[in-house]
Amino acid sequence: MSRQYPPGCPFGTHRSLEPAGSLPQPAWRLDNRPDPYDNEILVDVETLNIDAASFKQMESACGGDAAAVAALILDTVARRGKMHNPVTGSGGVLTGRVLDVGPRHPDHGRTSAGQKIATLVSLSLTPLWLDEIRSVNLETDQVEVSGRAIVFASGIYAVLPTDLPELLALAVLDVAGAPAQTARLVRPGDTVLVIGAGGKSGLLCMYEARRRAGVTGKVLGLAHSDASRLRAEDSGFADVVLQGDATRPLEILALVERSTAGALADVTINCVNVPGTEMASIMATRDGGTIYFFSMATSFTAAALGAEGIGRDVNMMVGNGYARGHAEIALNCLRESDKLRRVFEERFG
Amino acid sequence: MSRQYPPGCPFGTHRSLEPAGSLPQPAWRLDNRPDPYDNEILVDVETLNIDAASFKQMESACGGDAAAVAALILDTVARRGKMHNPVTGSGGVLTGRVLDVGPRHPDHGRTSAGQKIATLVSLSLTPLWLDEIRSVNLETDQVEVSGRAIVFASGIYAVLPTDLPELLALAVLDVAGAPAQTARLVRPGDTVLVIGAGGKSGLLCMYEARRRAGVTGKVLGLAHSDASRLRAEDSGFADVVLQGDATRPLEILALVERSTAGALADVTINCVNVPGTEMASIMATRDGGTIYFFSMATSFTAAALGAEGIGRDVNMMVGNGYARGHAEIALNCLRESDKLRRVFEERFG
Repeated sequence: MSRQYPPGCPFGTHRSLEPAGSLPQPAWRLDNRPDPYDNEILVDVETLNIDAASFKQMESACGGDAAAVAALILDTVARRGKMHNPVTGSGGVLTGRVLDVGPRHPDHGRTSAGQKIATLVSLSLTPLWLDEIRSVNLETDQVEVSGRAIVFASGIYAVLPTDLPELLALAVLDVAGAPAQTARLVRPGDTVLVIGAGGKSGLLCMYEARRRAGVTGKVLGLAHSDASRLRAEDSGFADVVLQGDATRPLEILALVERSTAGALADVTINCVNVPGTEMASIMATRDGGTIYFFSMATSFTAAALGAEGIGRDVNMMVGNGYARGHAEIALNCLRESDKLRRVFEERFG
Repeated sequence: MSRQYPPGCPFGTHRSLEPAGSLPQPAWRLDNRPDPYDNEILVDVETLNIDAASFKQMESACGGDAAAVAALILDTVARRGKMHNPVTGSGGVLTGRVLDVGPRHPDHGRTSAGQKIATLVSLSLTPLWLDEIRSVNLETDQVEVSGRAIVFASGIYAVLPTDLPELLALAVLDVAGAPAQTARLVRPGDTVLVIGAGGKSGLLCMYEARRRAGVTGKVLGLAHSDASRLRAEDSGFADVVLQGDATRPLEILALVERSTAGALADVTINCVNVPGTEMASIMATRDGGTIYFFSMATSFTAAALGAEGIGRDVNMMVGNGYARGHAEIALNCLRESDKLRRVFEERFG
């Protein structure tokens, strides 16, 4: 018996109720009925990985009571049709198993019922129907649920690999855009500076930069804390690991000048989620070079006016969390490199 | 009798008094003594073109009294050594005549005493010494002064052309980065969308895009108001002028789809100083295309999360007001195009 699928918009505007027809992220309320349109994926949801800012706000509003957090989540989803925290505006991601792939979804025939996936778009735009909340883990910000969710045709997701532990895969998928963009930017022979070298995305970027820059290139990692510096050093991906505070541009400039005989970086990749690191990124990069800002703490005006203020003719790019094939690229880094996998397992597994 | 010049830092850190040795923009107070270091240009200042936000704040704080604004400017410069509005954080630019070019300034021998220049870096980092304020023009935000200023080795400025009226040249120099960056981005055959097509930078970008895209390319201009649309149409630089509200992404997408047979833009240049136009820019640009954000109202996170939210694999660039040769490129646009010059004269001359 064949179901009738109504036709959907690739961006999911057909699910927006308030205001009707708007994009689902800015919409106040979505239609969360678990009946898929012709270009949607229906997911049997297992776990919500709530965004850290959102979880912290709810935990604090509930005085640290897990049951009260569960009630708050149910209330938000009942009112908005999505787990879009009205205070922080943020969401998170989810994992679950595919129940159905609409005939007009671009992955129809490739992704199939039973596969376990993780969404890589925010819960703030994902229609979600909750039957019950099984548990709220205050340590990991994870919520075990029974429910169903919708992934739009334009919504990115990854089929979880069967050869890697799920937590490890999720840790990598969370920053999957970083190595994919690094692979595009770095050319053989380049000098690459990775700021925030000891973090998840920093380590992945250094690994990819090392491979792309090759033996004639040079990878510099900048870390702040001792622990972060040790992780960057242990990885072996950097020719030089520098230690310093990226909010102090003149000090960073001096370090990078010394390590490059004054030539500065051809490509700088900023992976440090700390405000005020734009100027160090600009000063460390040569005229004509490129800076990729992955940090969500980046200020657009600080970057634009900073470069103009010192007359530095650099290309500055807004980090795009999505690049075609990014999930596969990022997971493959872990498969290829035992070192990377070990560092990730120790720290994030 | 030869002067002794002390050695200066190219970024001007030798002028920072509080905190000592910091970059001059974030510094609270600069050393504004009009004795140049070996890599500085000393300028006989004629006019301060105060930034609109700063001027408005001062005018309002002074109840619209020009004499009180003058006193406030003198007070700020006396306290900070620069016209860096402590409330708005913004500055402006200045014009004046070169008095001296230090022997280690990169333009020593090229720029010479007596030439009239405009600074293109902010007054918020320019050491300024004021002898007197001659007049404050509440209409134009211009302040006629007698005083001296310092341009650092890394500070950008333009020698004012003798063949163009000064006000016209200043209007163009204010947005000089826009056509220079457009020239780099646009390839023959490209479909280019300019958002904010009827404004100063929008018109310059359309002119440059028209030339670079060539006869096989296509230039789309998007304007909001009727007046702006008419200016864009009158220019003749666009193949199609669209009218719409760039804060409404789905409407803009529909317009651009219709004008490009669904192919969308290869390059989108956002010149509209209005918040909330990131999503329209992203949706109007094809997978693999490039968006250049000149608007200072751009939100870094709205751009980054917006592209990820709809899985659009686009390059997004932070507008850099500086590009090598940008002043010459921008002024030349006015010399080459009578149409452009006429539109600028009518509106900004």
